Amino acid sequence: MTKAIIASTSTIHGSTYLEYLLPTLKEHYYNCSEIVFIPFARPSGISHEEYTLIVKKAFSQINIQVKGLHEFDDYSNAIKNAQGIFTGGGNTFLLVSQLYKNNLIELLRTTILAGTPYLGTSAGSNICGLTMSTTNDMPIVYPPSFKTLGIIPFNINPHYLDPDPTSTHKGETRETRIKEFHKFNTIPVVGLREGSWLTVDDKTITLNGNLDARIFECNKIPYEVNTGQDLSDLN
Amino acid sequence: MTKAIIASTSTIHGSTYLEYLLPTLKEHYYNCSEIVFIPFARPSGISHEEYTLIVKKAFSQINIQVKGLHEFDDYSNAIKNAQGIFTGGGNTFLLVSQLYKNNLIELLRTTILAGTPYLGTSAGSNICGLTMSTTNDMPIVYPPSFKTLGIIPFNINPHYLDPDPTSTHKGETRETRIKEFHKFNTIPVVGLREGSWLTVDDKTITLNGNLDARIFECNKIPYEVNTGQDLSDLN
Repeated sequence: MTKAIIASTSTIHGSTYLEYLLPTLKEHYYNCSEIVFIPFARPSGISHEEYTLIVKKAFSQINIQVKGLHEFDDYSNAIKNAQGIFTGGGNTFLLVSQLYKNNLIELLRTTILAGTPYLGTSAGSNICGLTMSTTNDMPIVYPPSFKTLGIIPFNINPHYLDPDPTSTHKGETRETRIKEFHKFNTIPVVGLREGSWLTVDDKTITLNGNLDARIFECNKIPYEVNTGQDLSDLN
Repeated sequence: MTKAIIASTSTIHGSTYLEYLLPTLKEHYYNCSEIVFIPFARPSGISHEEYTLIVKKAFSQINIQVKGLHEFDDYSNAIKNAQGIFTGGGNTFLLVSQLYKNNLIELLRTTILAGTPYLGTSAGSNICGLTMSTTNDMPIVYPPSFKTLGIIPFNINPHYLDPDPTSTHKGETRETRIKEFHKFNTIPVVGLREGSWLTVDDKTITLNGNLDARIFECNKIPYEVNTGQDLSDLN
């Protein structure tokens, strides 16, 4: 029953917040007059209120109301009764800590699997994987676990960046980091470039957007998949 | 009594492993014929053996023998009896997990504070701070805590990268990430550019290398410090 959009980023270069996704979101949330926004990831540390305002403005363009989860007295009821849910990007460690603190991990999982339309961008997409262990974020707070929702049977690396062959920087490339992950984990990883998203429709997972994605499987050479391709069998 | 070198990176562009630091290390380890190398961070997932070979080769140029910690039967005794210690870079989550698993955090701290000459590069420098929360690494394993050695009264961000004004990528800049850290933590952060290092000599902490460093303090505008400057009062 799952209906989820798992996007690499909220914003692509040269456009406004969620602009590139609005036509898709209009369809995705076609029977929602209001959605619940989870602002816990707080990009750049902005407040829940500030973050929710940005989201309200974007969704007003497709005539959908937005209410921040922090505006509800009972978070669990808000999730259970939501017509649609959106978790925005920011810091994944903070997001996951807050979800655990408020006992929302299992509830969010079952609600999404039961069919409440879900959108995640960046950190909000990271949590759809089996673990948050392929986030790019800085560990600014210590969550009780790295285990996440498992809406999909693999992990996401959002904002996936190809190695820059001209770089003189000695920090690890994204590919090196994911290779290190696979020394200790067998979970496949989808490197989602900015502007790409996964559409989950019941048991079918499809790559969408203009770009190809890079797939990392344990003990395999990484490979590209074309947009439009079915990823349902990746696990 | 502390004698530590806390370096941004092991390797700078266009030179071999540790090459730029060798003259400094010759002085630093002047009374050591052999040092103990902690290979737990395993860059790119290489084995302890492979990693130690790279380090042996570098140190052979200044006539210092290297023994990997994994070669000892008793890790605690190896640390206690070391003439000098070096922790190499790689994945900080893995390094910290292994240090906790082997009960070495407190012992390493007291050994370094008692005067055993220490070198850290990258992940091995991250652990000298109060927490590992300003690492750039991917959380490939879940450590029991983010608390680290606290050899210095602040945190390190190694491989510090200035924002690229021409970038179209929407992932967070390093400065944005550290700003998020300071929404939840008051610990100052030293952004150490590649080729820079801190020298800790008893209570005195000095910035060395060719480059300036960028300092991030909670609720302050980030600022630059020149190489050669004393950072002992940053806390």
